[in-house]
Amino acid sequence: MIRPQTLKGFRDFLPSEARKRQYAIDILKKVFESYGFEPLETPALEYEEVLLGKYGDEGDKLMYRFTDRGDRKVALRYDQTVPLARVVAQYQNELPMPFKRYQIQNVWRADNTQKGRFREFMQCDIDTVGTNSLLADAEIIEVTSASLKALGFKDFKILINDRKTFSQLNKQGFVTDKDLVKAIRSLDKIKKIGEKGILEDLQKNGFSKEISKAIVENAKKLKESDDILLISKILEQLGLRKSEEFIFVPELARGLDYYTGLIFEVEIKDYDVGSVCGGGRYDNLIGMFAGKQIPAVGCAFGFDRLIEAMDALNLFPKDLQTTKVLVTVFSKELLDKSIAVCEILSKNGINQELYLDTESKLEKQLKYADKKGIPYAIIIGPNEASKNMVTLRNMKTREQKTVSLEEVLPILNK
Amino acid sequence: MIRPQTLKGFRDFLPSEARKRQYAIDILKKVFESYGFEPLETPALEYEEVLLGKYGDEGDKLMYRFTDRGDRKVALRYDQTVPLARVVAQYQNELPMPFKRYQIQNVWRADNTQKGRFREFMQCDIDTVGTNSLLADAEIIEVTSASLKALGFKDFKILINDRKTFSQLNKQGFVTDKDLVKAIRSLDKIKKIGEKGILEDLQKNGFSKEISKAIVENAKKLKESDDILLISKILEQLGLRKSEEFIFVPELARGLDYYTGLIFEVEIKDYDVGSVCGGGRYDNLIGMFAGKQIPAVGCAFGFDRLIEAMDALNLFPKDLQTTKVLVTVFSKELLDKSIAVCEILSKNGINQELYLDTESKLEKQLKYADKKGIPYAIIIGPNEASKNMVTLRNMKTREQKTVSLEEVLPILNK
Repeated sequence: MIRPQTLKGFRDFLPSEARKRQYAIDILKKVFESYGFEPLETPALEYEEVLLGKYGDEGDKLMYRFTDRGDRKVALRYDQTVPLARVVAQYQNELPMPFKRYQIQNVWRADNTQKGRFREFMQCDIDTVGTNSLLADAEIIEVTSASLKALGFKDFKILINDRKTFSQLNKQGFVTDKDLVKAIRSLDKIKKIGEKGILEDLQKNGFSKEISKAIVENAKKLKESDDILLISKILEQLGLRKSEEFIFVPELARGLDYYTGLIFEVEIKDYDVGSVCGGGRYDNLIGMFAGKQIPAVGCAFGFDRLIEAMDALNLFPKDLQTTKVLVTVFSKELLDKSIAVCEILSKNGINQELYLDTESKLEKQLKYADKKGIPYAIIIGPNEASKNMVTLRNMKTREQKTVSLEEVLPILNK
Repeated sequence: MIRPQTLKGFRDFLPSEARKRQYAIDILKKVFESYGFEPLETPALEYEEVLLGKYGDEGDKLMYRFTDRGDRKVALRYDQTVPLARVVAQYQNELPMPFKRYQIQNVWRADNTQKGRFREFMQCDIDTVGTNSLLADAEIIEVTSASLKALGFKDFKILINDRKTFSQLNKQGFVTDKDLVKAIRSLDKIKKIGEKGILEDLQKNGFSKEISKAIVENAKKLKESDDILLISKILEQLGLRKSEEFIFVPELARGLDYYTGLIFEVEIKDYDVGSVCGGGRYDNLIGMFAGKQIPAVGCAFGFDRLIEAMDALNLFPKDLQTTKVLVTVFSKELLDKSIAVCEILSKNGINQELYLDTESKLEKQLKYADKKGIPYAIIIGPNEASKNMVTLRNMKTREQKTVSLEEVLPILNK
């Protein structure tokens, strides 16, 4: 017999987990759409040469690739940015510009699972393509903030910076243009290795002790670029409080080869396992298939981390189980009564479930309700039936009372 | 430069199409959950030996299979039934029994695209696993009916039969047990080839002319099995009208090797391109990994056909575009005014979009609204700004009027 198992790094989502994910997705979609972001879906399988577009060695190693029966080299979706670039080139005349889209789909990466990484995981991206207006940058931050608030996060801060901020470093004469990239790469590790670590890292990369110190000191003193000043101004007009809700962090330096302007990251209080979302402006990527520069700015939510953080901070409602009540079946003869009750509940908009067997003991039926997390059960025995009443059982407190169905409705409608 | 293209049989869903699909999915989920069906998700990639479990030659040919970097033979999800069987075996102690789940995920089949088939398509299944109670059969039909009604279908009929009905044929002595399968296979084609076609088909399969005639004649006269009688009775108790909403069709014979009891199919008036959904009882499949028989009954919606049918019958609401109004930006100087209007609209729960550029001509901005199908635009020029008013433009009628924001709210809130 074949052993029932999943591949390493791949997950089943049983109902309680699937519900949480759906809850978060629904909220995110609603927020994205309220700002005019539109849904986009792209295929799981694409031509390998299309998906490899952006990634050199990394994609080469981690992308799921194979040759199909038509001898085509194909690969599984590795991210949602390259497919977006393809879509923008392929449907140039159909898409509105700027094109504001969200995309929430799985991607596959044959990554090392020992690092706690999954090989199938969901990405959740919003991007505004086709404008270099800083209004777009500010909007992406606004939507990010609104999304996290809608999910229930209360205490978080959006750290912002401009990739171009660092050019002040070489203007000050500490580093050459060429060395700047190396320096930023070190500064990018501030959260992981701290200031001392960065000093060591810089020296390992060939900077002298003095220059290293100067870089670290001056990185802290870097000034807001004109872009950051304007984005900040717009954010304040949009109602986001500077310093409290968003803050300029001159040493923030993520995604060096990728971002060209704004960069940002979210810091959630009481959850520092990692960044749940971040993004920025990347003007040199989306045009890769169109043969011209197409500016873009976006935010990516780390969906698994987001769910983890929500779990950790207790942000999921307790009643994600949508069934309010199990209508038990006392006997074959009394099935009619149970069905009639279901009909009335249904007409009153109450999600109910009829127990699907006429032969099971009540105990078994109640256990079923417990296992599914259904909060109430209705019992209609001969006694109840003769008086045209029902017994309502609170599954948690185990309290029961025999009442008319009219009395039950408001309790279940709560 | 790499050509931006998708693989044959794979589709992008641009916003207007993605919205329709989401609309249908949301409704289906809501109905499924209102009957206590719970969401389940399984991985896209599984061990090949797991997924090949059920399918012999067909799966062999059509399944996307390859060897991963860990030298594991893997395959892409081919259907949702085999993964369900795996899940039921793998989490036996965690799952409630009966386990009522819905699953809405993509599957991949390297099928001939010339037949109008896609290689990536969505399946949408509900199944009740672990009970042979006919209440479960009736409930599946009830949920199917409720789902189609919720999607807006008005004139449809659920054709029901019992796989066991056909055993009356050999009891009558026309066909041997062995030949029965052949006979049913012919009868199954009734919709495609008609009565005359079936007569020919039976003869091609070795039945004499007389026996063929007798089979066709007697297939029509087959009587409702006890199971069908009981299911019908429950359906009537549940409020479904016999003959009108569901009907016994003795020659209905789908999925011969698969179903063991109830079989059903939906016929939609004014849409006969194909069955949008169908299902039945299949008691010998779900236990394949558990090493014991586990009864099951379910319904599968052909999601692409469903969308097609809804399009054909005009069942999609016209306003799936969620943005109500584009707030245009007259100039850099007046950006503040536009942002302030957005804030007020947002606070009043109106989905609005701020045009993301301060330099674009009004004409370009209005074209953008048109392309996105946004029904209204708000214009705030110096004139409006000085009077603290806005100009509201109906994008369809092109009518404009300059009014206070208070007057605008009820129009946009409609």
